[in-house]
Order: sequence, then structure tokens, then C-alpha cells
Amino acid sequence: MIYELNETHDPALKCRVESAHNPETEFPIQNLPLGIFTKGNKTPHIGIAIGDRILDLFECGKRGLLDGLPLPLLDACAAEQLNRLMALDPELWSRLRMHVSRLLQTGEKAKSLAGQIDDSLIPMRSCTMLMPARIGDYTDFYASIHHARNVGSMFRPDSPLFPNYRYVPIGYHGRASSIVVSGTSICRPCGQLEHPGFAPDFGPCRMLDYELEIGALIGHGNPLGKPIRMTNAESHLFGICLVNDWSARDIQKWEYQPLGPFLAKSFATTISPWVVSMEALAPYRCPAPVRDPDDPAPLPYLFSSENAQTGGIDLDLQVSIYTERMREDLQHPAGVSCSNLTNLYWTFAQLVTHHASNGCNLMPGDLMASGTVSGVDKSSRGCLLELAWRGTDPVLLPNGEERRFLEDGDEVIFSAHARRKGFASIGLGECRGIVAPAVHQSNFTHS
Amino acid sequence: MIYELNETHDPALKCRVESAHNPETEFPIQNLPLGIFTKGNKTPHIGIAIGDRILDLFECGKRGLLDGLPLPLLDACAAEQLNRLMALDPELWSRLRMHVSRLLQTGEKAKSLAGQIDDSLIPMRSCTMLMPARIGDYTDFYASIHHARNVGSMFRPDSPLFPNYRYVPIGYHGRASSIVVSGTSICRPCGQLEHPGFAPDFGPCRMLDYELEIGALIGHGNPLGKPIRMTNAESHLFGICLVNDWSARDIQKWEYQPLGPFLAKSFATTISPWVVSMEALAPYRCPAPVRDPDDPAPLPYLFSSENAQTGGIDLDLQVSIYTERMREDLQHPAGVSCSNLTNLYWTFAQLVTHHASNGCNLMPGDLMASGTVSGVDKSSRGCLLELAWRGTDPVLLPNGEERRFLEDGDEVIFSAHARRKGFASIGLGECRGIVAPAVHQSNFTHS
Repeated sequence: MIYELNETHDPALKCRVESAHNPETEFPIQNLPLGIFTKGNKTPHIGIAIGDRILDLFECGKRGLLDGLPLPLLDACAAEQLNRLMALDPELWSRLRMHVSRLLQTGEKAKSLAGQIDDSLIPMRSCTMLMPARIGDYTDFYASIHHARNVGSMFRPDSPLFPNYRYVPIGYHGRASSIVVSGTSICRPCGQLEHPGFAPDFGPCRMLDYELEIGALIGHGNPLGKPIRMTNAESHLFGICLVNDWSARDIQKWEYQPLGPFLAKSFATTISPWVVSMEALAPYRCPAPVRDPDDPAPLPYLFSSENAQTGGIDLDLQVSIYTERMREDLQHPAGVSCSNLTNLYWTFAQLVTHHASNGCNLMPGDLMASGTVSGVDKSSRGCLLELAWRGTDPVLLPNGEERRFLEDGDEVIFSAHARRKGFASIGLGECRGIVAPAVHQSNFTHS
Repeated sequence: MIYELNETHDPALKCRVESAHNPETEFPIQNLPLGIFTKGNKTPHIGIAIGDRILDLFECGKRGLLDGLPLPLLDACAAEQLNRLMALDPELWSRLRMHVSRLLQTGEKAKSLAGQIDDSLIPMRSCTMLMPARIGDYTDFYASIHHARNVGSMFRPDSPLFPNYRYVPIGYHGRASSIVVSGTSICRPCGQLEHPGFAPDFGPCRMLDYELEIGALIGHGNPLGKPIRMTNAESHLFGICLVNDWSARDIQKWEYQPLGPFLAKSFATTISPWVVSMEALAPYRCPAPVRDPDDPAPLPYLFSSENAQTGGIDLDLQVSIYTERMREDLQHPAGVSCSNLTNLYWTFAQLVTHHASNGCNLMPGDLMASGTVSGVDKSSRGCLLELAWRGTDPVLLPNGEERRFLEDGDEVIFSAHARRKGFASIGLGECRGIVAPAVHQSNFTHS
């Protein structure tokens, strides 16, 4: 089920929040992403980003602005996390979106409620964003064939792609407890490092990297033992956010065989706080990626004609790095790559169906990340491992600094924008994290 | 911190529950494992297994039997899951154990309370056991070198063990949502199956297997970014249970490169409902496994002298299979292998310290499983893949049936017992699961 275009997508909508008309805003009235915020350590509330404000859904409920919506929806809007809302029927998500869009429009309908609405709008800069949901399970996929081929060719030049790649949406379970919200600083991890010919030692990671990913948050789930067909897969998607799957390449290289990445990833994963709904993304849907003529068709359980036609999302992705020196010199962050979500070999619907194809139960709030979204061109590579080609071709920053991997004090900033002629442009907000030095641990074998 | 022996371990203790003196019981008064039960769909309560009864801690609290214990402990004992109890200081776990031991002893102290105590004891057979904790993250290790070597030699005869094995406690993140409690039937999963030379197809797994494991449940956790030293690692362990890490070997073989097992495992993991505390296990502690003279010493961050001396647990493990034909013929389940937890190359303390060594935060209720506990001998192999050597050497059951892998209707039963001369023998209870046929899915490419 791809959402149909409706009134909420109309680019001509007028919003009572002036900043929502700023051409720079990522949060025009056509977006309406959901998140969890707190102001001054008060109880967290669900909010909707609109221009430079947050519409506080708890306050809206208290002031009667949500009257007329079904009770389960009202209950879910008063919660401290999005999980209850996620667990509801998608039809109710749509009702909420339409309702909020009309509240925020400058039409007759909302005029009589103007006072209450304005009282429920809070300046975004006075709020702290929290994790949008309690993430029970986090799965990280490997859905960009360009990323898989680049990384594979560094480690296995003769056979960069394993024979399964074009058939199986490759993925692995990630660590849920260490997922943090944008703005949290990231401690450089320690771990075992290989020294070929010598024993490994234990110390701070020297090859710290980011990975540019998009994550889908699961709405309602499926019972254990009941797979999800492709024709239903989209209805299980609640929305998307940015994901930085921080990676310790040296720890990863030594530990990953034979069971895959573990401590190289589990020290932290950052997500952006705003969840952009699948309905908001409706105007930017596009065909699933066209495969090479030599590529096999997806197996039947991973195919639907709707998915082939509209399973993709045309979403521009950007990575910037903001080093300590740039901050000291009052410069801007430096863009290092631009990619697009259409670079994925598999769609999110295919990832959902594959994930549940063995009967695995997905739960509201589960995070399914795409894997690094690299494209064909060098400029679209989604991690430093690829951009600097394993350290052999350092990235030159505009201020003359070079990066093979991340240094302490580097801040990594992801952003994402969907644009289509005749429609508003919307953004996902930012996913940021600054690298803090490793915590001193005794017991290091080397100094 | 290994618990010291105290009054609760005294083999001479007399218990007011007669069945706790049955030489066959796994739950004498020296054990006192914790679990969550429900009777007739009532609210779940925390219970303690004693002989063939369950001591209902909620009822105990209501009747004043826990009076005198600190308030946070009383609160935690009234919860519907063990997580709050797990999050407390280990000293409080000990207070609860001592308190309950004295309530159940036939001494003067409990005489005046006899009526209330008896009213809080429920026949185990009238109860349904539930998941003991909300498991946030599940990690599966690979801590038996014998298992790693056996499996490695099937797929890589020239180099069965990767060079990292003797340095790194290899592990991967598992799926938390599909962990189920003993007694839940297990649907045979479907998945992509390889047909060398042809395209893969999608259908029911043909190489379904069990894996005999022990799981440690985490007590209090560590903050993100704060590793756990070896000298503190034991204090983070709340207790242990049996784990069956069901595995679809054919799905696994095709999907696992390069990111490790995923759908081959995530369809279900079964755990036993009773959590045996680390304090109950104190009499059965033993040295960490002695390494081969050629093996490297553990890196310093994974070493403590206490762990070397008492990091192991001498725990006998048994696997039985109960086929449909055995049930029809009213036979007993057939034992197929016996192992011991001392077959592990790494101790649970080392697994905890390694897991948190990159700053990863462990949380109360997290499950850390050992990986398949295979020993040197054939009779101690902990999965059918090893026992029947990839199907080449079928297991002959006493009634003449053969097994290469599990068939529909097979029930797999794990049990575990700790025994030491001069002490009571205790058990972990059972971990059972019966294989149900695959759910019919259309979209199969082959019939």
C-alpha cells in the first residue's frame, strides 16, 4: 500500500506557523514528522515539527484540539514514546496527519481554535529531542550493491560480491541498547586490534568511521510464525529517519569472522529524532531500482508489481564533517559526499518481507536500517572506508585537513531531502554526533 | 565477585515443602530459582521453584512474609517481570535468597508464619510459566572451541578455526523478539535455499537443528561508554537458564556471508523459565578452562586471577529427542548427547567484560548465550549438525529411527544439573520445544 496523494501534500497549503514557509525549512506543513521532545526536563511528549516550532500533541489533547479522533489514537498521542501510535492501524496514522494538517492550516476551520493552537506550539530551540521510540530490535541491512562491491573488492578483490548478494537481502542483527539520538557524543571505542605476525592488543580504535544510512521504523508488527507478504509490507512501515551506523573498521576486520560484525558496531548508533511518515513521502516514491540485465529477478516472495513501480524513495542524502579546527576557525562544516536512497538494490518493502519470511516477528518501533547508501560515483560513497579507499586516498577537506578515518573532535552530520517538481521539499532533520576521545582503560597491553 | 558459601547452601537444610527433599527434584531448598508464572490467566507473578511448588512472591509480600526487606526489593518482588529485581544491587538479591530460604526452612522462625507460607505455595503443575524477563538485547557467543572447530572443519577443512578464535570471544547479536519460553512450539521456518548451479528457491528449511546453550541473564547494567572490568564482571550476572538456539542450517549456509547468521536463527530461540542465581551456583564453581600449552593467554583486559580460579561452572547438560513415534509408542525421550559447561573456552565473566569493552551498555534482562556447548567427545556434541556430521553419519535413536536433522513432530528437551559431593544437586528445569510443520506460503518457486 503506497499512500495516495491528498490534501496534506498540496504545495499551496498555507500554514499558520510562518517559519514553515521559509524555503530553507525541512519541516513545511506537508512534512509533519513525529518525534519525542522534552522542555526543561519535563515529561517527554510527542511533538510534530512545523517550521521552527514543535506542535505538542499532549497539549493539543489537553486543550481539546484532537477531539473527534478515535480514543486509541488519543491515548497514543498522550504517550511518552511513539510505540503505541506505531502499533495502531495505518488508517489512524492518516487520520492524525490530516487532522494536524488542518489544525495548522490558516483556514476557517482552525480560526476559532487559534489561541489553543498557538499555546501548543513550542520553539524548537527550547526543546531537547529524545529517542522517538523504544527500539526493541535493530536490524542493519546491506542493501546498496555499490557499497557491498566497494567493500568486498578491498577484502576480496577476486570476488567482491558473494553469490548470494543478488538473491538475499543481506542483513544482521544490531545492538538496540546503544542506539542514541542525534547530538549524543560518541566515545571512540576500544577493542582488540590485529598486528599481523604479532599478538593482537587492546586499545582505542584507529579506524573509526561513519556509515550513512536510512532507517525504517516498524509500525504494527506481525505475530511470530506469520510472514508478511510483499503486498502488505508497506503497511508495516511507520516512517523513516537518518541512521549513522558508527563503525570501528580495525576492530571489525579482526573480529568479524565467522559470525559478522559485533563490537565494531555495538558501541553506538545515532538516529535523527524526527520520523517522517510514509504518507509524507508519497510524492517522492519512484520505481524500485532497475537491475542489470544479467541480474536475476527477485524471487517471487520478494516481488510485487506495486513494489516494482513505486517501491523506491527519491531521497537526497548528504554527509558533512565538522572538525575541531573548522569550529575554531568559525568555518562551516565541509560536505564530503552526496548520495540518494535510490542507490539501494532492495526496497524497504522487500527488507520487511524478507525479514519476516522465516516467521520472525517484527514489533512496533523496531529499526530496520538500509546499510551504507553508496552510489556508483566516488562522490556518493557513504563512509570514509570507501571515500578514502581504506586509507590509501585521504579525503581532502576545504581547509586543507585530510581524513583517512575520523579523528577526535570530528562531528559527522547527515541530512536528507526529498524534492519533486510541483511539490514541497521536505527534510528529515539532522543526524549529528561528535567523536569524543577513548575512555582511558588500564589493562592495555601496548601503551 | 564469586558468592561465598553460606547457610543457604547447607545440604542439611530441612524444607517445609516435602517434595523439595525428593532426590529427583531439581529444585531443593538450596536452589531457589526465580521465574514468572501465571495461574488461570491471572496477572503474572514472580515465583520461586521449590520441589513441585512455586512460592508466589507477590502473595508473600501481601501476607507480610517479606516484611523487613528493603523497599526497592519489595517493589521489585511485586513486579510482573524480573527486570526490576535484576537492576538492583546483588547484595539485595542475596538478602532475598536468605530470607526465602529461612521462610522455607522448618525452623522455629517460620513456625508462626506456617499458615501464610503454605497459602503462598502453589502446585507447579497448575501454573503456566512465562518469559522470566523482558529481554532487550540478546547476544549469542561461540564460546566452545570444540563446536567452533567441528563446524569450521566441515566448511573450511584446511583452517577450521579462524586466527581470531583464541583471542576474541566471538559473538553476534541475536533477535530478541522471537525468544520464547519452554513449551512453545516452533514453526519450521521457510527461507532461501541454495541449489548449486541453479537459482536458489524459497521453501521450508530441510536442515533444522537445535543448539544446546546456556544463557546468562544480566543483572544491573553499565552506562554507555563505561566498560566493565573483569574484577566486576561477575557482579553483573543475575543467573543462568537453558537456551535452545534453533538453527536452519541450509538457510544459514546460503545467507551468512559476509555479515553472519540472520534469518537462520531469528525464527525462534527457546529458553527455560527458571533463572538459577549465581549465588545458588556457588558450590559448583571451578577454574576457568585450562588452555592448551600452545594457546595464548587471554589479553590482560580478559584476565583476572579470581576468574582463572573460579570462573567456570561445573554443570552437566543433556539433550533428548522425543519423536512423534516415541510418543505414539508411549516410549521415553531418547538421550542423544551429554555435555558440560566446562567445555567453554571463555567464562561468562569474560563474555561480559568483552561485550562491554567497547563501551556497549548492557541492560538488566539482557540475554548472553554461550553458543553451542560441545565437548571433545562425539557424545558431547551439542547440535545435530555435529552429531550427524552434516548429515553424513545419522544419529540412530533407540527405537530404530534415524535423524540427520529435526523432523516435524520432534520435541527437543534440554536439561542441566550441578552436582558436587557434600552439596545438594540442583537443576535448571527443562527447555523444551516441539517442531511444527512449516506454514504454507504461496510464492514458492518450487513445489
